[in-house]
Amino acid sequence: MTQAYAVERPGGPVQVLEYEPAPLGPLEVEVAVTHCGVCHTDVGMIDDEWGVSAFPVVAGHEAIGVVTALGDAVDRTRLSVGQRVGVGATAGACFACEWCLDGRQHLCPHKDNTAVRGTGGGFASHVRASDWRYAHPIPDVIPSAQAGPLLCAGTTVFTPLLRHGVRPTDHVAVVGVGGLGHLAIQFLAKWGCHVTAVSSSPGKESDARRLGAHDFVVAGEGEGLRRVANAFDFVLSTVSADLPWDAYLETLRPHGTLCVVGMSGESLTLDPRRLLTGERSVAGGVTGPPAQIRLMLDFVARHGIRPAVETFPVARMEEALDHVRHGRARYRAVLEF
Amino acid sequence: MTQAYAVERPGGPVQVLEYEPAPLGPLEVEVAVTHCGVCHTDVGMIDDEWGVSAFPVVAGHEAIGVVTALGDAVDRTRLSVGQRVGVGATAGACFACEWCLDGRQHLCPHKDNTAVRGTGGGFASHVRASDWRYAHPIPDVIPSAQAGPLLCAGTTVFTPLLRHGVRPTDHVAVVGVGGLGHLAIQFLAKWGCHVTAVSSSPGKESDARRLGAHDFVVAGEGEGLRRVANAFDFVLSTVSADLPWDAYLETLRPHGTLCVVGMSGESLTLDPRRLLTGERSVAGGVTGPPAQIRLMLDFVARHGIRPAVETFPVARMEEALDHVRHGRARYRAVLEF
Repeated sequence: MTQAYAVERPGGPVQVLEYEPAPLGPLEVEVAVTHCGVCHTDVGMIDDEWGVSAFPVVAGHEAIGVVTALGDAVDRTRLSVGQRVGVGATAGACFACEWCLDGRQHLCPHKDNTAVRGTGGGFASHVRASDWRYAHPIPDVIPSAQAGPLLCAGTTVFTPLLRHGVRPTDHVAVVGVGGLGHLAIQFLAKWGCHVTAVSSSPGKESDARRLGAHDFVVAGEGEGLRRVANAFDFVLSTVSADLPWDAYLETLRPHGTLCVVGMSGESLTLDPRRLLTGERSVAGGVTGPPAQIRLMLDFVARHGIRPAVETFPVARMEEALDHVRHGRARYRAVLEF
Repeated sequence: MTQAYAVERPGGPVQVLEYEPAPLGPLEVEVAVTHCGVCHTDVGMIDDEWGVSAFPVVAGHEAIGVVTALGDAVDRTRLSVGQRVGVGATAGACFACEWCLDGRQHLCPHKDNTAVRGTGGGFASHVRASDWRYAHPIPDVIPSAQAGPLLCAGTTVFTPLLRHGVRPTDHVAVVGVGGLGHLAIQFLAKWGCHVTAVSSSPGKESDARRLGAHDFVVAGEGEGLRRVANAFDFVLSTVSADLPWDAYLETLRPHGTLCVVGMSGESLTLDPRRLLTGERSVAGGVTGPPAQIRLMLDFVARHGIRPAVETFPVARMEEALDHVRHGRARYRAVLEF
């Protein structure tokens, strides 16, 4: 029997939904959830922010737990019952299309997005990876309460560093010190880069520096971004707000890239002179393929990187959702089951 | 004595300006001009389109000619008097800054832009490279009348293929069949790609196909760009007009790049969902470093690529300027001295 923590209507109360799960498919893995991170996307789905939610919604796509069952076709030399794994924003892909065959499974048009599965999310006693290669073994040194946020937030900000060839000699900026940004700062500091954190909240400077930032810029105050004009090889924007994009383009050195992984509803507007001068780029990023998720987990383990989490027992799920809804998480809320 | 073809006021008549040139600097090369292409930028400078022109203007930055004098420090094992060379949009760089030392001399903040030199342009009996490494030897098989447009138009559309790692297996689109676009189509066809030309002029289809395009899309007509949704790994926009950028983003495959080398005065507006989905990129391009200009000339020679030019004796320079001003060149006007 699966106990799922469901919301029946936009923003509505959390209710426990019990159901008998379908028989396990040959490639599927069932995981007994012990922890699940709460992402902004979960609140957006619960609140039907994008008008795509099918209620009841069982959100959650940063689940950590223990394997309880393996489908018949799962490679038992690589995964076993009782093993601790994580299931993130993607829970499966076709492993047969041109993108999957090319190691870019996150571009697979058939991939299984955990966040939009309806009742199949990780806020539940059990969650499934629809393909066992998306049940990621968690290195022993990473505590379960902290592992969840690595799977969505971590992947989202880690894989652009590989994709865009960020070099340890680069000067980089992370825009936003939140669920994604506080991980990006840690990754880039251990990557060897000179890291500048950019935030509209002056109060986050001490956190940012403690996480590894060498410099801190308060956006929109005083000199603000003008102080770092032409300073960065790579800028990672993690905020879900409309930004003064031209001002950020100005912070890029020639051949620099502004990678956008946070999304507002507004169009980006870019002065073509700022794009052409210095041959700058703007790129979108969403997530990454399994091979890179595993590289990230290994990197996190080696460098002692840890998401900053606030844990809530699942009985206080509504409180946790509210915490995230109002941007109060420092820096990621995690449910304990 | 240098005879320069100068314009004294915006859009004004062409007048011959005679002057005794300064003594040749140690790294300089003097070139007796035989041909010079007419770029849109030349007309823009003459018409003071951007409010930056210092009159009298001697335009021209696609000059071909013969070396008549070498500065004392020029390497005579690499360049000699009597040799045929070209001087393009850049005529020198510092060869000492971080960009120059890294092989990206086109990003040098001290580079000598031929187009904004005042009276030092290529519409003259003689033009100088301020550094001999910017006097590019022209392969014998390329006629002088056709070589000029390679230096600015050619470089502008060739170097992005190297910079963005365009692969012969890629499906690509060239937006605009003009001075730049008609070269880009030839380059990409010989690069091994599947090439689609995009133009608002249905009448250019036969030219585009003759130049090597495998497909042709009339932008803004009928199905237009919708027929090529999700079709291209790389799109090169060569037009100086405001485009429906989101529609072009939609033509990109996942991980595809829209490279913009033509510039309108308008900001680009981009829907972030179209940028993030498929992790697409938008990049600006301006020109390329000397090493890549030489790779281009070699590629052109090997493949028999030729700019389509219309030649004008310099006495008919005003007619040539008008031809370019009104977009009638098929596809590049070239002055003969």
